[in-house]
Amino acid sequence: MKYSYISHLYCPKCGNTYNTSEQHQLCSCGAPLLVDYKWDQLKAELKREDVTARKGDLWRYHELLPVEEEQNVITLGEGMTPLVSMPALGKDMGVEHLYMKDEGLVPTGTFKARGAAVGVSKAKEVGVTELAMPTNGNAGAAWALYAARAGIASTIVMPVDAPVITRNEVAIAGANLYLVDGLISDAGKIVGKAVKEHGLYDASTLKEPYRIEGKKTMGLEIAEQMDWEMPDVILYPTGGGVGLIGIYKALNELKKLGWVEGKLPRLVAVQATGCAPIVKAWKENKKESEFWPDSTTLAFGINVPKALGDFLVLEALYETEGCAIAIDDETMLEEQQTIARLEGAFICPEGAAAFAAIRELKQTGWIKEGEKVVALNTGAGIKYPDTVEIKIPILEKDGSIGAPNSI
Amino acid sequence: MKYSYISHLYCPKCGNTYNTSEQHQLCSCGAPLLVDYKWDQLKAELKREDVTARKGDLWRYHELLPVEEEQNVITLGEGMTPLVSMPALGKDMGVEHLYMKDEGLVPTGTFKARGAAVGVSKAKEVGVTELAMPTNGNAGAAWALYAARAGIASTIVMPVDAPVITRNEVAIAGANLYLVDGLISDAGKIVGKAVKEHGLYDASTLKEPYRIEGKKTMGLEIAEQMDWEMPDVILYPTGGGVGLIGIYKALNELKKLGWVEGKLPRLVAVQATGCAPIVKAWKENKKESEFWPDSTTLAFGINVPKALGDFLVLEALYETEGCAIAIDDETMLEEQQTIARLEGAFICPEGAAAFAAIRELKQTGWIKEGEKVVALNTGAGIKYPDTVEIKIPILEKDGSIGAPNSI
Repeated sequence: MKYSYISHLYCPKCGNTYNTSEQHQLCSCGAPLLVDYKWDQLKAELKREDVTARKGDLWRYHELLPVEEEQNVITLGEGMTPLVSMPALGKDMGVEHLYMKDEGLVPTGTFKARGAAVGVSKAKEVGVTELAMPTNGNAGAAWALYAARAGIASTIVMPVDAPVITRNEVAIAGANLYLVDGLISDAGKIVGKAVKEHGLYDASTLKEPYRIEGKKTMGLEIAEQMDWEMPDVILYPTGGGVGLIGIYKALNELKKLGWVEGKLPRLVAVQATGCAPIVKAWKENKKESEFWPDSTTLAFGINVPKALGDFLVLEALYETEGCAIAIDDETMLEEQQTIARLEGAFICPEGAAAFAAIRELKQTGWIKEGEKVVALNTGAGIKYPDTVEIKIPILEKDGSIGAPNSI
Repeated sequence: MKYSYISHLYCPKCGNTYNTSEQHQLCSCGAPLLVDYKWDQLKAELKREDVTARKGDLWRYHELLPVEEEQNVITLGEGMTPLVSMPALGKDMGVEHLYMKDEGLVPTGTFKARGAAVGVSKAKEVGVTELAMPTNGNAGAAWALYAARAGIASTIVMPVDAPVITRNEVAIAGANLYLVDGLISDAGKIVGKAVKEHGLYDASTLKEPYRIEGKKTMGLEIAEQMDWEMPDVILYPTGGGVGLIGIYKALNELKKLGWVEGKLPRLVAVQATGCAPIVKAWKENKKESEFWPDSTTLAFGINVPKALGDFLVLEALYETEGCAIAIDDETMLEEQQTIARLEGAFICPEGAAAFAAIRELKQTGWIKEGEKVVALNTGAGIKYPDTVEIKIPILEKDGSIGAPNSI
């Protein structure tokens, strides 16, 4: 048994292939590269039971991940997050079988840790010593911290409006941190110049091929946690869309292995009404999205006006007969509060958008009676303290309180 | 097989016993009550392998927990947090076998979720509909959210200086939240009055018997994750001390079951120099601590001037030949930064204090060459954004950066 059954990199646009022992970024045609594995060998040599007997982190799927030598694995115990049943919320929405995959329970508090763990590990394996990336905050935090653990220097550029807590994470990791008075697209241009001038490894979304492999483990785990029966619908808050592409890739890979059977779940891309390029493209039945001008939403993680992998996201929606839907900020915040009150989960606004989408899709009949529905909560609510507005009475030391409100 | 092998409650001071089907608070003698189990039956009917084959949360140990009907379990997937190897930090300290049990990876981002999950579940089982508690922030956040999931109303009182993020968690859960212009001891007095006046269930630290059962799962998991070989030393940031008492209880219970053998690890209570009542009592070889006046530390979670369970903490230290040690705030913050830079883990100041204690205890020779050492990180660094001081350059949209610093 090998640690990884990785085979090669390939371009989903032009079909070009690349080896996995050298550093690669985009394909020469400009498209993102994807990882392929030795499926025949894998099918013969790896069983579901081998995987499920292992430790509860994403590395239990190491044969399906790109890192070839175990010693290169950089881990903080990320993955195998809980799939939480949401019965009270489900009742409130009329969705009997409702689940949350809670990505708040990983290092750095968001799903970005999965991509960073696998991406940084593989970067170490191919000899990277300095990387750079633009970020809306959470990805930069995760990559800076995992890079620190790997002994790789990192340069992170984020908008001044990105969540303050993510600055602190990048700073304490010892990364080179810059703020830009603009959007993530402006940060991307600055990183692009630095990569060229200083010979850095470009860890921007989909500009290196391995982050998506980390994120696909969300799909692998959902299948495992549902006893290898796929749900009917999976909803994903979609900015760059790598999580959704990853889940789609994962489920297809599990089908190749024969570990799951039947139709794939209908995948749903959830965006904010203030930044919904994928939704627009899907409604117009297009294969690619257009840049969304003046994008704005408090769900910072999905404020991505044009995603490099938009064509892959749209392909996943079309192929699974899924859909794309936009939620406004006010509705997200209402749903976030409803979820906390009914289920005791304080989730991020992006995750709340996914649940608000379920509510709407059930009302319109797109989600049918009795279907099994999984929403990804992409991060912990504690990373977004400003989404909660409160007024609280302050008591003197010897004060007392009136009769408390019941539920 | 029963879901729980709970037997009865007993008082560790006067020996009085109580049933587990009714609501109980303290013993009539004023001491906290502890839970006992049916050890002979457990030993005959439960095997280690039964437990380790189960789902990765703390309920895998349900036979050793107090909830008798599975339907009363209130869970968000808490527990089975990673035991992370810390090789670079260990090298820096001269401790070859160094591990972090990372309690940041639970709902609400701190270990308090364990106590809340088990405490709230059992509260539901014994018919509680309204609870109240004073808190330094994190416990209140956890109890408010789990209570919301259980449909139990909660009243939470915290100092105005408690971390703002924890206020938001309590508020979004729909709890009755009050701030007090004082310390947790003042909040405790207000809660005491409210409990009496309005007939609420008092969920204060150790005033109900079940929170400690949730926290003991940290000890069960450490033993399991080390393949049932106990480490030499376990360090715990100690405020109320329930986590340490719980770990001590857990390891003794595993010995009763024959799942671990030999000497217990030496347990170490780590406090802040600005609030070190347990350290003072241990140095003076006393059985109880005295109220620490004008306590102050930025590690808010361990700012507890007098713990109700102090005598149990001290017993655990004496019985295991452990010790107690105080760390100043500046040293904690330095260690916090070192840990982020060397290991990529952004941990809370309380957790950093435990690592700083290891560094000091290795220097003094109390921790010996080759010993296996486990530190509990009790919470995620992202809950304490103000512990990181940063200065960051802000670039214009078309700006560029110089050659980045290497590591």
